[in-house]
Amino acid sequence: MHTLDSKTDVVLDGAAEYLNMPHSRLQELVDKRDIRQNWGEYQHLFRFDTTVAGIQNGSVLYQRNGNFELIRGFPKIRRAMLLEPAVHNHFSTIDSVVVEEKMNGYNIRVVSIDDHPVAITRSGYICPYSTEKAKTLLDASFFHDHPDLVLHGEMVGPDNPYVPKDIYDIESLEFFVFDIRKKGTGEPYPIKERRRLASEYNFTQVHHFGEFSTDVAPEKIQQIIQDLGAIEHEGVMIKDPEMIVPPIKYTCSQSNCGDLRHAFKFYNEVGRDYLFSRVVREGFQAVEWNEGTQQLDERCLRLGKSIIYPMMDTIRHIGEGERIADNVQIRVRDLDTVDKFKEYLRRLGVDAIFSAPKRIGDEYLLSIKKPNRSTNDKTDAILKGDLW
Amino acid sequence: MHTLDSKTDVVLDGAAEYLNMPHSRLQELVDKRDIRQNWGEYQHLFRFDTTVAGIQNGSVLYQRNGNFELIRGFPKIRRAMLLEPAVHNHFSTIDSVVVEEKMNGYNIRVVSIDDHPVAITRSGYICPYSTEKAKTLLDASFFHDHPDLVLHGEMVGPDNPYVPKDIYDIESLEFFVFDIRKKGTGEPYPIKERRRLASEYNFTQVHHFGEFSTDVAPEKIQQIIQDLGAIEHEGVMIKDPEMIVPPIKYTCSQSNCGDLRHAFKFYNEVGRDYLFSRVVREGFQAVEWNEGTQQLDERCLRLGKSIIYPMMDTIRHIGEGERIADNVQIRVRDLDTVDKFKEYLRRLGVDAIFSAPKRIGDEYLLSIKKPNRSTNDKTDAILKGDLW
Repeated sequence: MHTLDSKTDVVLDGAAEYLNMPHSRLQELVDKRDIRQNWGEYQHLFRFDTTVAGIQNGSVLYQRNGNFELIRGFPKIRRAMLLEPAVHNHFSTIDSVVVEEKMNGYNIRVVSIDDHPVAITRSGYICPYSTEKAKTLLDASFFHDHPDLVLHGEMVGPDNPYVPKDIYDIESLEFFVFDIRKKGTGEPYPIKERRRLASEYNFTQVHHFGEFSTDVAPEKIQQIIQDLGAIEHEGVMIKDPEMIVPPIKYTCSQSNCGDLRHAFKFYNEVGRDYLFSRVVREGFQAVEWNEGTQQLDERCLRLGKSIIYPMMDTIRHIGEGERIADNVQIRVRDLDTVDKFKEYLRRLGVDAIFSAPKRIGDEYLLSIKKPNRSTNDKTDAILKGDLW
Repeated sequence: MHTLDSKTDVVLDGAAEYLNMPHSRLQELVDKRDIRQNWGEYQHLFRFDTTVAGIQNGSVLYQRNGNFELIRGFPKIRRAMLLEPAVHNHFSTIDSVVVEEKMNGYNIRVVSIDDHPVAITRSGYICPYSTEKAKTLLDASFFHDHPDLVLHGEMVGPDNPYVPKDIYDIESLEFFVFDIRKKGTGEPYPIKERRRLASEYNFTQVHHFGEFSTDVAPEKIQQIIQDLGAIEHEGVMIKDPEMIVPPIKYTCSQSNCGDLRHAFKFYNEVGRDYLFSRVVREGFQAVEWNEGTQQLDERCLRLGKSIIYPMMDTIRHIGEGERIADNVQIRVRDLDTVDKFKEYLRRLGVDAIFSAPKRIGDEYLLSIKKPNRSTNDKTDAILKGDLW
């Protein structure tokens, strides 16, 4: 049985009631570590490591003044493989869809917990770095005025310890709101109201390409995707303006290949499904866009290069005695955040080497090296004659 | 508990003794179906579905005149990723290696069981089609003279129900011997003796490129691989002339991409590891051969095309209302073999539709359609708007 602190039994009792499940069932989920306690100042937050009774993984449950509050995980967004049939079929009950940009960063929910804005990752951890950023970037009066709301958004930019991107003309890191939902039910705001509310508080929002009738949407989206692809942006979210039909996503080939390019630097760690799903998308897009020989060859070459070139770089660097690593950076106001973030990565089992802080204005820039032991060791062994 | 026929207990007793394991351990392996009975006229053959006590999967154990005989599975052959370090490291205890061709077909062991040559697949099944072919293609006196030997070889050519290939200038199907081993221990013949023995019986053998000192072998092999690649052949086996150090394999990029081209016709069935391992080989070969931009781009384009083009064909064909299938053919002397082969595929759970036999000389040609339900259904659903 997983050991919890002394007050836990009482807490679990109330939580079971809130979740409408027997105490024994909840205890079982805690024992199996499907529901886990956070640590440190957040140990009163329970994180759903798996989807339980309709509550998706990444959800967070906690007690506030004797009552329970639930912050639901990000809803799983399904992907269109062929735009036209997918849009017509998925949105068959509505007349028009809103197209917003899908950005390449990491997902964060920001919510007020114990009167402080807290940044929660996709998995339901409290990220100390993102929390500092949320406090800096967001007008805190929002959480005072709307303690029952959860901001969903993307943390985007170069000072990004997870998915750094230079493509957005962002100096450090920005938080782009793409959804506002209620605590408890997870009910979303309709798009117009969400954008109005976000702009009231001067929140940065994902780009809104427009609202299109479902008839013309696939063609419009194809054009948007081609434009976004040309500047290496990721893709779009296609949404019901009322947010009743769930949104779907569709992405650019260039972004797809960009993912592979980054992943294959650490080829020995590439998820097999990660590779497979990305190559399959290319095939469907090529069919739907009815490409000619030249465009097709460009697509095939882009795909092949995105796999082979980064692998070759890695093998060569290791062959020259280097060790490869994922190099990222963070920028903080408070050096305390660095200590918390180090502890956070340690808890998650992420191997990370932090540079000394470098003062820039009223902030500190730190580079972080995340060595990839698996790819380093495997490549080194093969260079020394190991077989596959 | 898996039900076996009445005599099984006695048989198991003896088998346990032969394998030097307790009867209870063997019974457990049979119960778990790690060791399985064959069917029909071969139900006295036990097949190892997994590696047990150093006896590799695909091994076959049976009783003959009260004694047990063991036909060991094909030894797992490891792969060189970088030729030079692999050859130097793997063969560091010997001075020279033999290079033979690795052909693209399916592996068969031919052995005399109850005084008849029988063809055993990699997994340890008795393939009725391959058995007829073995009887036609091989001088049976070999098995009379050497009842203790097992021929290892590749069934290659267009009349091939598993891996049909037109690249070898073979009219129907040929059996290329690449190894001769003893029953029981699996001890291999040294290469010269094996080639001499095989030629005594006029067996077709895999091509022998030569014996090279380990110093020059990597360079020689690179040249051989480039020549083989140009004619779409698969690759080479690199062997200790004495067959004491285990052989290793190395393959051509073109063959690698040919595998992907075939596999991606049925994209929804492609093993994730199958794809991953093939793309990784490309990266290492490109580094070792130190390719210039043009060669590299050719390699990247070849890789991309081998994935995207067959997928596109499939999606388009299904979009036009067709159903895709793997089309293969067999050529038999005895129509009885067709019935047995149908039953064999049925037992293995392979969906196959046989054409009517077409008489050609004293043989019958039959085409076999193996529909791929998974890729057909998935593609059809996406064409109708399903999401991933």
